Amino acid sequence: MIGKKIHNFARQLWPLNRSLTGDGVRETLRQIAEHLPNLNIKAVPSGTQVFDWTVPKEWVVRKAYIITPSGEKICDFSENNLHLLGYSVPFNGELTLDELKCNLYTLPEQPSAIPYITSYYKERWGFCLSQTHLDMLEDGVYKVLIDTELFDGVLNYGELLIKGKSQNEVFLSTYVCHPSMANNELSGPTVVTYLAKWLEENIGELEYSYRIIFIPETIGSITYLSQHHKEMKEKTVAGFNITCVGDNRAYSYVPSRDGETISDNVAKHVLKWIDPSFVNYTWLDRGSDERQYCAPGIDLPIASILRTKYGSYAEYHTSLDDLEKVVTAEGLDGGYWAIRRAIEAIEKNKKFKVTVYCEPQMGKRGLYPTLSSKTSGEKVKLMMDFISLCDGKTSLLDIANKLNVPIWDLYDLVEKLESHSLIKAIE
Amino acid sequence: MIGKKIHNFARQLWPLNRSLTGDGVRETLRQIAEHLPNLNIKAVPSGTQVFDWTVPKEWVVRKAYIITPSGEKICDFSENNLHLLGYSVPFNGELTLDELKCNLYTLPEQPSAIPYITSYYKERWGFCLSQTHLDMLEDGVYKVLIDTELFDGVLNYGELLIKGKSQNEVFLSTYVCHPSMANNELSGPTVVTYLAKWLEENIGELEYSYRIIFIPETIGSITYLSQHHKEMKEKTVAGFNITCVGDNRAYSYVPSRDGETISDNVAKHVLKWIDPSFVNYTWLDRGSDERQYCAPGIDLPIASILRTKYGSYAEYHTSLDDLEKVVTAEGLDGGYWAIRRAIEAIEKNKKFKVTVYCEPQMGKRGLYPTLSSKTSGEKVKLMMDFISLCDGKTSLLDIANKLNVPIWDLYDLVEKLESHSLIKAIE
Amino acid sequence: MIGKKIHNFARQLWPLNRSLTGDGVRETLRQIAEHLPNLNIKAVPSGTQVFDWTVPKEWVVRKAYIITPSGEKICDFSENNLHLLGYSVPFNGELTLDELKCNLYTLPEQPSAIPYITSYYKERWGFCLSQTHLDMLEDGVYKVLIDTELFDGVLNYGELLIKGKSQNEVFLSTYVCHPSMANNELSGPTVVTYLAKWLEENIGELEYSYRIIFIPETIGSITYLSQHHKEMKEKTVAGFNITCVGDNRAYSYVPSRDGETISDNVAKHVLKWIDPSFVNYTWLDRGSDERQYCAPGIDLPIASILRTKYGSYAEYHTSLDDLEKVVTAEGLDGGYWAIRRAIEAIEKNKKFKVTVYCEPQMGKRGLYPTLSSKTSGEKVKLMMDFISLCDGKTSLLDIANKLNVPIWDLYDLVEKLESHSLIKAIE
Repeated sequence: MIGKKIHNFARQLWPLNRSLTGDGVRETLRQIAEHLPNLNIKAVPSGTQVFDWTVPKEWVVRKAYIITPSGEKICDFSENNLHLLGYSVPFNGELTLDELKCNLYTLPEQPSAIPYITSYYKERWGFCLSQTHLDMLEDGVYKVLIDTELFDGVLNYGELLIKGKSQNEVFLSTYVCHPSMANNELSGPTVVTYLAKWLEENIGELEYSYRIIFIPETIGSITYLSQHHKEMKEKTVAGFNITCVGDNRAYSYVPSRDGETISDNVAKHVLKWIDPSFVNYTWLDRGSDERQYCAPGIDLPIASILRTKYGSYAEYHTSLDDLEKVVTAEGLDGGYWAIRRAIEAIEKNKKFKVTVYCEPQMGKRGLYPTLSSKTSGEKVKLMMDFISLCDGKTSLLDIANKLNVPIWDLYDLVEKLESHSLIKAIE
Repeated sequence: MIGKKIHNFARQLWPLNRSLTGDGVRETLRQIAEHLPNLNIKAVPSGTQVFDWTVPKEWVVRKAYIITPSGEKICDFSENNLHLLGYSVPFNGELTLDELKCNLYTLPEQPSAIPYITSYYKERWGFCLSQTHLDMLEDGVYKVLIDTELFDGVLNYGELLIKGKSQNEVFLSTYVCHPSMANNELSGPTVVTYLAKWLEENIGELEYSYRIIFIPETIGSITYLSQHHKEMKEKTVAGFNITCVGDNRAYSYVPSRDGETISDNVAKHVLKWIDPSFVNYTWLDRGSDERQYCAPGIDLPIASILRTKYGSYAEYHTSLDDLEKVVTAEGLDGGYWAIRRAIEAIEKNKKFKVTVYCEPQMGKRGLYPTLSSKTSGEKVKLMMDFISLCDGKTSLLDIANKLNVPIWDLYDLVEKLESHSLIKAIE
Repeated sequence: MIGKKIHNFARQLWPLNRSLTGDGVRETLRQIAEHLPNLNIKAVPSGTQVFDWTVPKEWVVRKAYIITPSGEKICDFSENNLHLLGYSVPFNGELTLDELKCNLYTLPEQPSAIPYITSYYKERWGFCLSQTHLDMLEDGVYKVLIDTELFDGVLNYGELLIKGKSQNEVFLSTYVCHPSMANNELSGPTVVTYLAKWLEENIGELEYSYRIIFIPETIGSITYLSQHHKEMKEKTVAGFNITCVGDNRAYSYVPSRDGETISDNVAKHVLKWIDPSFVNYTWLDRGSDERQYCAPGIDLPIASILRTKYGSYAEYHTSLDDLEKVVTAEGLDGGYWAIRRAIEAIEKNKKFKVTVYCEPQMGKRGLYPTLSSKTSGEKVKLMMDFISLCDGKTSLLDIANKLNVPIWDLYDLVEKLESHSLIKAIE
């Protein structure tokens, strides 16, 4: 089960302090590149204008903790990187508990969870901890040390281009900006790493080229689009934003803005046959980089196939989103295969035309029972139904939907009929 | 509450003997013109050919009553103008009760109601009275006096043209041919009078021009179309036939023949948000001047927004359709606001395009919370959803439907985003 | 009741040994030609290449039976032509019961039925009998005689061309290749014979030309298409494959591949008004010559109107499909009228345009009550609704659907309005 390998890789990446920028992102990309030697790690300087946005300063964390009046070290970043508010500015000082509380963040409704909070676009400092922990804090003076630095550095991302037979591309995007959380987000980059490995292994047989990126969410996709959107608009035939693909509790789909692209139709088809009760979200439920890829004027055909969607599970954006109870090898395996099925469907989704007028004489080719009886017709029904729909205008996906079978049930049939020259793919 | 003023105006117009033609129509138009000084009162001579029809003779009633064998004056037109069959020819004579009964009209199933009956296109005379009254009539000889006159005069109507920024027009039509009845019809011309006053008061801000007519039903709309249909076909972008907008019991919609014009879509949207249980009629339920405006070859985009529809309430076309129990200030207020909301929606229903690629950075404009947390995203969800749909191709109405909010909830948002130059209207 | 005549004709054709080729087909066509003197009986030589297929050898049966060890003659073809496996090759020999059983066919689940089995495309011999009979056979040596011949002869079919006002054609196809079975298939050719008689009798009034063929199923339609498909693709506006139109248990519809042709829409309309609970099959339920007529590249607008569909009733393709319990005069009558209604609808299905702007003044033409009252409007509602939809773009069928009435309820109205020059048909 490939999910086991993916889970191990996620464990390996777990402790790194991913954020929009910084060492944690670079180290994550470096470890991904060990699996994907062709991964190109790019750097964009802080301050670069990207559409309506500006690439932020780079953030480095050396250490961060609080010393209680009793001398205990708490909220130690080195123990759990969620303790530090993302993009906290440096601070070194003493405060009373009441003063400190203005910079402490908890989730009262989930008292055991450390929340994940960031302040990318306003300079702040702060710590995140469980409500239970907060409730136990004694009165007195606390020492706070935040040894961070915000400076003009770079924003990094990884880009992998794989050449197929066609210049047209399938686009896969995932993000590497969240610290130690599992479904959102380590499931995304680890599953994409293994999908990319599979594509690299089959490079000679790919119909489409592949553009695969590992970026920080939002600012990363905006940055990437600002560099590549014209080329991508010409080339991209389909694609997926890949996140939250690691828990084993549900399958979900978030449409592109258009809602009827090939990515949407493939996603709905694949999920229907993997899990008929998959959650069918709308564009209004979106919340990741499809916001950029499908923005007016960008208009890429990008949908999302997920397990349990960001924002819809209790552990989301807290320390409870872990690699034990939430994300499992089984969950990752399901996420991997759903997207792989979708990519395979895109690869195979051609239009076929039957090469003879009327039904072919299957019998003379040994494809039909020679004795006609009350039931023999049923045996070859799928084959004859399929042929009857090969009009050169209906895609394999649409035929599968009309026949009410998974598209993958047709792959062998296509091969057999092609080998008998009874159908041919239309360019 | 504007409904109170409209109700008072309806009381004032109540006693006038409206019909297809005659003094009652002229006096009604004159009193409307007191509110709308720019109203142009037109006259078309009897005998004028209007498409397949001929403008009828003008009808004047001086007096009309019956004297019973006991000398009692009954069915006196001066007491209730419904007593006289509409367009009755003159008559002066004596008849037995049995002879008289051939010219008496009642509603046996509504014994207390005087029915409203007309005979425009065949020369007849008659009286209308309650079944209860008829049942009390004694045997004997009755004297009948109908001092009316049918002569080559004119058919009158009122026309108000209001210039907006565009030559394109919104068309409002209502009718002034029914004697003393309230929902059908005094609610129509009185509500339209107040809508026209509001438009006149906002004349500098109107996107569209307005063509508003007060006509006799059927022959009036046919006459008006015979004069203006080519110009109207070029200019009319939307419009409503306005009748039965005064009772407080229901909201209703009758589609145009096309069924999918902007008038239809606005009407359905507005009514859905005012009263989700509004009655959704079909073209086959039509029964007023939309029959002409939407006739093949005319094809104007005219729908109807009503309270309780003509023909669908017990008091319809009887003396029971009054300004006390049926039409109320609340009812008129609801009718006025439904149509005003519809007109406002037509005025505001532009297509907007976001001015930047990808999502705008709202934070730097002070439009976004600076601290990202589990819930902060929800706060600006409507704004970001709206921006995500501003593709320059989707109208504000369609966006409101996609967002499942009333279009008027978006007016402020449009203004705010336009003021930040984040969206612009597409010509 | 015409069904009675059709049933008698079916009884007459019953004993003939129809198959793909041979004397039974020729004699069937000859007897049909007694009703249809213009029927053209064609012959295509064995071995002719027809698209992907080859016209088979002609099959003649002189006698066929088995002699049991006790000397009893069983499975005698002269008693029931279903006993002989269709296209059996000659055989003369002795076998033990066990050897014989390899060539015996039964239906264990329907023990009293003789199954209908053929082996057109592989040379075999065999007998069909009831399971009950098989179970009674004694051990011992059986004598088998099959005096048949497969030789280079001809495949026959009948073609009837009827000229209407237009070169455009309605196509009717039925088949004559099944031996003694009633719903599938004698109901088809007998009903088509009587439909063709009706068309011939009305030849001066037909809008469309008619192409009617009596063919062996599959190989016959492929053969006919190989000769005529280009001409048919140009001319055919509608058509039906006619089979299983003789039992009185259900009405059914099988769509064309397109599913939205005029044939489909007429079929669904007619069946809805004849039997709202008609069975609505899909293209995947097809199973007769529509497989060829609607094949990709052929693409004719051919649907099927049936009573109980082939394959969906217990007696199908067995000796139980008879003219007593399954096919009845009532059943045939219903089948005849359903298709006749459909043909009439195709003939009448023009687009009409009202000749005046706005509603016509019906009163001056005596088409409208002169006294307007609360209810008088209802009386002419259908007429005014109909006129309101005569926009020159909506077909009579579509208007009937919008008005929710059977199309045949509009035929008189069309005639009346045409006679008053209020509507005219659009070319």
